[in-house]
Amino acid sequence: MLIATACVFVAGPTRSTEAQPAGESMKDLPHLTDLPLTAVEIQDSFWSPRIEINRTKSLDHVYAQIEATGGIRNFEIAAGKAQGKFGGPFWADSDVYKWIEGASYSLALHPDPKLEARVDETIAKIAAAQQPDGYLDTFIQLAQPDMRFKNFAFFHEDFCTGHLFEAAVGHYESTGKKTLLNVATRVADLFDSTFGPGKRDYISGHEGIELALVRLYRATGEKRYLKLAEFMVNGRGQKPSLFEKQFAELPHGRVLDFLGRPMDIDAWYKLLLNERSGKLDTRYSQDHLPVREQTEAVGHAVRAMFIYCAMADLAYETNDQGLLDASQHIHDSVTLRRMYVTGGIGPSAHNEGFTSDYDLPNDNAYQETCASSGMVLWNHRLLKLTGDSKYADVMELSLYNAMAAGVSMDGTSFCYVTPLSSNGDFKREGWFGVPCCPTTVVRFLPSIGRYIYSQSPDGLWVNLYIPSKATAKVGEGKVTLRQTSDFPWEGEVKLAVTTDQAREFKLRLRVPNWCAKPAFKVNGAAVTPAVAKGYATIDRKWASGDTIELSLPMQVERLEANPQVAYDRGKVALRRGPIIFALEETDQEAPLDRIAIPVGASLRAQYEHALFGGAMQIRGEGVSRDPGPWANQLYQPAPPVKGKPTQIKAVPYAIWGNRGQGKMVVWVDTAP
Amino acid sequence: MLIATACVFVAGPTRSTEAQPAGESMKDLPHLTDLPLTAVEIQDSFWSPRIEINRTKSLDHVYAQIEATGGIRNFEIAAGKAQGKFGGPFWADSDVYKWIEGASYSLALHPDPKLEARVDETIAKIAAAQQPDGYLDTFIQLAQPDMRFKNFAFFHEDFCTGHLFEAAVGHYESTGKKTLLNVATRVADLFDSTFGPGKRDYISGHEGIELALVRLYRATGEKRYLKLAEFMVNGRGQKPSLFEKQFAELPHGRVLDFLGRPMDIDAWYKLLLNERSGKLDTRYSQDHLPVREQTEAVGHAVRAMFIYCAMADLAYETNDQGLLDASQHIHDSVTLRRMYVTGGIGPSAHNEGFTSDYDLPNDNAYQETCASSGMVLWNHRLLKLTGDSKYADVMELSLYNAMAAGVSMDGTSFCYVTPLSSNGDFKREGWFGVPCCPTTVVRFLPSIGRYIYSQSPDGLWVNLYIPSKATAKVGEGKVTLRQTSDFPWEGEVKLAVTTDQAREFKLRLRVPNWCAKPAFKVNGAAVTPAVAKGYATIDRKWASGDTIELSLPMQVERLEANPQVAYDRGKVALRRGPIIFALEETDQEAPLDRIAIPVGASLRAQYEHALFGGAMQIRGEGVSRDPGPWANQLYQPAPPVKGKPTQIKAVPYAIWGNRGQGKMVVWVDTAP
Repeated sequence: MLIATACVFVAGPTRSTEAQPAGESMKDLPHLTDLPLTAVEIQDSFWSPRIEINRTKSLDHVYAQIEATGGIRNFEIAAGKAQGKFGGPFWADSDVYKWIEGASYSLALHPDPKLEARVDETIAKIAAAQQPDGYLDTFIQLAQPDMRFKNFAFFHEDFCTGHLFEAAVGHYESTGKKTLLNVATRVADLFDSTFGPGKRDYISGHEGIELALVRLYRATGEKRYLKLAEFMVNGRGQKPSLFEKQFAELPHGRVLDFLGRPMDIDAWYKLLLNERSGKLDTRYSQDHLPVREQTEAVGHAVRAMFIYCAMADLAYETNDQGLLDASQHIHDSVTLRRMYVTGGIGPSAHNEGFTSDYDLPNDNAYQETCASSGMVLWNHRLLKLTGDSKYADVMELSLYNAMAAGVSMDGTSFCYVTPLSSNGDFKREGWFGVPCCPTTVVRFLPSIGRYIYSQSPDGLWVNLYIPSKATAKVGEGKVTLRQTSDFPWEGEVKLAVTTDQAREFKLRLRVPNWCAKPAFKVNGAAVTPAVAKGYATIDRKWASGDTIELSLPMQVERLEANPQVAYDRGKVALRRGPIIFALEETDQEAPLDRIAIPVGASLRAQYEHALFGGAMQIRGEGVSRDPGPWANQLYQPAPPVKGKPTQIKAVPYAIWGNRGQGKMVVWVDTAP
Repeated sequence: MLIATACVFVAGPTRSTEAQPAGESMKDLPHLTDLPLTAVEIQDSFWSPRIEINRTKSLDHVYAQIEATGGIRNFEIAAGKAQGKFGGPFWADSDVYKWIEGASYSLALHPDPKLEARVDETIAKIAAAQQPDGYLDTFIQLAQPDMRFKNFAFFHEDFCTGHLFEAAVGHYESTGKKTLLNVATRVADLFDSTFGPGKRDYISGHEGIELALVRLYRATGEKRYLKLAEFMVNGRGQKPSLFEKQFAELPHGRVLDFLGRPMDIDAWYKLLLNERSGKLDTRYSQDHLPVREQTEAVGHAVRAMFIYCAMADLAYETNDQGLLDASQHIHDSVTLRRMYVTGGIGPSAHNEGFTSDYDLPNDNAYQETCASSGMVLWNHRLLKLTGDSKYADVMELSLYNAMAAGVSMDGTSFCYVTPLSSNGDFKREGWFGVPCCPTTVVRFLPSIGRYIYSQSPDGLWVNLYIPSKATAKVGEGKVTLRQTSDFPWEGEVKLAVTTDQAREFKLRLRVPNWCAKPAFKVNGAAVTPAVAKGYATIDRKWASGDTIELSLPMQVERLEANPQVAYDRGKVALRRGPIIFALEETDQEAPLDRIAIPVGASLRAQYEHALFGGAMQIRGEGVSRDPGPWANQLYQPAPPVKGKPTQIKAVPYAIWGNRGQGKMVVWVDTAP
């Protein structure tokens, strides 16, 4: 496949000369670091309410669901402290770990003794279930003890373990407690003593352990975990696949399906066969090529995001040029050809994932919430590695749109599938037979502070304009940035600096791709900082009381899709700043099916206090194409006049589907 | 399902008050009759060259293919005059019969001793293969002798037999010879002695025998054939289906598939199972309901057309109100919700047939040529039964567009599938593993004279404006109509009357639905005849030398589809008179993918002599949406100017794909 070198995602005048060539050398890359999660307090009108709802409603709701479906009890049974059978899908452990991770982040920012007690109690149950040699996977322990480490392609020991590591590090970093970290390192040590060069081969069937091993390495300093992650990532793409070898060695006809029903393993294997070749569809779990030879985003979207994250993590840690190059090619494949305008991915329900270039149907867009979360994780890693704002652009887009839409405003119902249009059938659900998305939401929302700022030895980076207070160690001293604005509704941002003493450092401010004319003032005086890779750099001696005013004017924009996206031809999507808008039936005067937006229509933004505590709407004059003469015909001469004027309103995609069920579109027909 | 009562297909000012209510009483219907095929000579620039190519090229080409794939030899082997195995698909006999039918029509209008000799020789081989009791199906005789009359749902004894009857009557009517008719009546008598009330139950798996039995009845006067057709039609839609009963009695695991490969019959049966219910998908062959309760066009499109024809034939012969009502409901279902703008049907390759309302994809439109031919047959029957021009409108549309596109201009390659847009992959083929469409073309083209005129006791009906000479018995005398025009390129039609003596009769002239302002002159003087059911009636004493001038102005029209056809939203199709146009890549200045037609664009018709001997083009100014900035992006702000002017050319859909492979669209994007 030909990969062109220019990678501008959404063209904006300020970005036109900043194409990022694939093949950029590792040595030029900044390797940014995070601020600790505890160092960033969000104080905005978009995320703060969501994080609070997550803390006060979603965490309880999700715990209750996990408990009701047996997720907690599985550990008690495995520990010999309760009787019964395994409950939930075979990766039920992962949902418990994801809940702990979310609860931990929540505790980091908001002490809550009751929640902390529940976390501690749950961790104790987990620890009690761990086997003497460190093994821990309650499904295998309870339901299929003879299948331990035998069928990674199907069971999710690896996926669950990855989430254990993530939860353990999150819990440790948020609370300072090592209770879960100690469980995690024992599991990691078991994996390490079992798999690796000279030991058993291994690749994961549902990736997730690899990036988590890197995180565990960073938290513990244990290099074996990094090496093991590298071994696992490098094992992909062999011919024949390790999965095929593994399958050949499996005892057949003896597994349970994901709901614990008996299932013939050959039948399962057939599900993964490529229809044409009759062979295992190795693209499904990104096992079709060695990772450094991969150039396209393929297969199951969540699996893809996790392995791509691991590739970026390893590139970051080991300066592996091949992994960086592959990551950039794959990123082009996603953002230039396989991503929804909302920043979500994975159009198809068939493989829960990627299909072909420009295949982005709206009605039945799969756009799984876990994959949207994965887009944020992956783009954040590439941003930190490269310091290139184009990754922050995608991260911001996925965050405010595809990801934010994944949970209801009341925090108790969730999107698994997140379509870009609805005929009125769609609604979020409180729980799913496969409940990964609710637990993804609860672990993700309290971690958003992580993405706002980055740090390099020479200064601080502002990636996202989320009003917040951040404290960072700069040089030997401490710097606090207080960011205030009405973002994402308005782009006038103020940053106030507080330092222990005046210090010189570079402050890098992202210029979003949606902003054509940014303007900067320092202490009230206009400045014109150089912009490179989408970041404006202001280098000066900063002292307490210094202020930066950043103007990022937001326009109501009509986006059109590449004409190769057949589903969007003749349509526009509305964007203002980072927000993608949707038209919901309930807001329109005319039937939604009939509405088109004339090319010359004036569209304006209007803040609506009544909309979930305040949100921006887009309003303007559309046309309603009269359905009257169509009542009973299939074709007719097109009328010279295409409709009558009608007032339209669009709301942020993130809040659609919160006012009862109804029709919705993101891509709206255009009209003359 | 709610069926609305108004049935206007394409709205035109002259048709606005003529909605045909379902439930019209049989007693008011005119029961028109055909003129004999030999009485109509076509002399036009559209069909005459195609009929001549069919005679001089297609008949030879198709015979050679049938011969090469064993179709003729099958009869010789069955007669004991050759050795070998059955060749071709298991319905190979039908292709031989269809070739004979086409050759016979050709002989009727154009004597050709060599062709006649080949027809006679082939018929002799067929006759020799017939078994003593009248049975004739070479596949069963040669390959599966123990399966005779045991598996109608799968094998095509009935379908082949239907085509035998059609060929036999066509041959008899065209040549006066009874050689094949005698074979046919022996087969019919065997069916009649085997199936019927008090005998064995029967419904056909691939319909086609029912309408042919009615035709055989009309040719022979043998009422048993009509009764048998009625029995067969009435047997459909039982619960459980007769197919299910038949299947339960079948010996399993022992059939051959359509290419003669061993096939497990259970596997075949599973192919026909409805995915949801796990039961036989009785809709596939219109066996889901008793025919009088059917209101929707469903299942395999060719099967559907054949049974719908039989329903119309029986309604015609027996004045069965229930069959008429059902026919009208089904016709609404097709023309108001399930028909392409080209008059073709059946969007899906999965069932080669109908899917759901408004599901009319263009890229992968199946629109089988056999189904397009079926649309002409069916609408002709409903026209004759009702005298309603709306059926002639559809007949004309299917004829000039979907059907005409089914064969290349050189007569040696054919469409099985006939898409409404192409990315350049599509081409016609010389032959197919399932070669029904080529044989449908050769049997259909020479029969077109049949559709131009009809007759009622009180006069003559002109259904189609195909330049031609027709001679009819009117009262006790003879009337000749000579129709001249540049149809379908221009709508100025002249009819010259010749009579043995001056006679009073009604001349009914169809006012096509695409014509808003028809004008009439008799002997040079304007007249304003009453128009009812889309026919203008001129009632006078006609004498030799009388002339009628009919002006049917043709406009270039942009048709739009019902907004419920998602695939066509924001697009228009170009029509002028009965002709639907297509844009082919080769004719455009700009890349076809980029072309849109502005709402206000001036479009004109221009006759192009160089285009296959002369055809109308539509030309005008479109816009080309500049692909430049799209080379490497997925979304971008929509530009205020939507493109640069470009000259566009559209050619009749009937001739697309005859100038090399290339991209094509019928539905073109609109632009402001």
